[in-house]
Amino acid sequence: MAADSGPAAIDHVGLAVADLDAATAFYQRLLGVPPSHREEVPPDGVTAVFFDLGPSSLELLGSTRADSSVARFLERRGEGLHHLAYRVSDIEAELASWRGRGAELIDEHPRQGARGRLVAFIHPKSAGGVLTELCQLEDSPS
Amino acid sequence: MAADSGPAAIDHVGLAVADLDAATAFYQRLLGVPPSHREEVPPDGVTAVFFDLGPSSLELLGSTRADSSVARFLERRGEGLHHLAYRVSDIEAELASWRGRGAELIDEHPRQGARGRLVAFIHPKSAGGVLTELCQLEDSPS
Repeated sequence: MAADSGPAAIDHVGLAVADLDAATAFYQRLLGVPPSHREEVPPDGVTAVFFDLGPSSLELLGSTRADSSVARFLERRGEGLHHLAYRVSDIEAELASWRGRGAELIDEHPRQGARGRLVAFIHPKSAGGVLTELCQLEDSPS
Repeated sequence: MAADSGPAAIDHVGLAVADLDAATAFYQRLLGVPPSHREEVPPDGVTAVFFDLGPSSLELLGSTRADSSVARFLERRGEGLHHLAYRVSDIEAELASWRGRGAELIDEHPRQGARGRLVAFIHPKSAGGVLTELCQLEDSPS
């Protein structure tokens, strides 16, 4: 994404789930592979479970706090598709590009996310109703 | 997915959009690549535009009929994430597996979808709130 870094890849698709253990068992049976990673992300009030599917992943998100954004999402919309994350090589440049287009950024600056990635979220109102995440594998542009 | 065929890949993520041309221009600028394919799918009452991102794609779905499922989705939830599609090698076997688990199938049998794929949809109530699509690249199991 953005002209400098060429096309993006889908890093992961995030799903909000009501019962993380039940959902993990469901997807393990469905996909035929065990989860690749499980991690609590206290700042977001979630525990995330990942399943790798080629270069992309599914991320199951279970809420660990009643006031987490995932808890609010579940109350409002129920379980289902939550966000779409693109893998980028220079997250600072990408954020600057979104900012330059007048996008509403949830994260003004990249922060540590699950799996050691630097992440930043864009508000759905600036991305066609899609809660959009940018994530970068390493700490600096490749 | 399913034990026989090994792990699935994400074939595409479907997004419901209100204005297909505007959304196409938005994603072309965002992703830095032109769409790879545009196709009207009369049985579904949609026109689909695809952007390729490695082995996966984004599918933008614009409604062409007031009574299409995408039109109803837009009325109910607005623009945003619509469905998640897995690429499978034997869609008949996959459907049988879902049926065997008691899943509610939207398509009892595979049918022709966009880009020449055989497709079948699973109801969100049987897949953790996610409208789930199976799709197979060729007409017969590989």
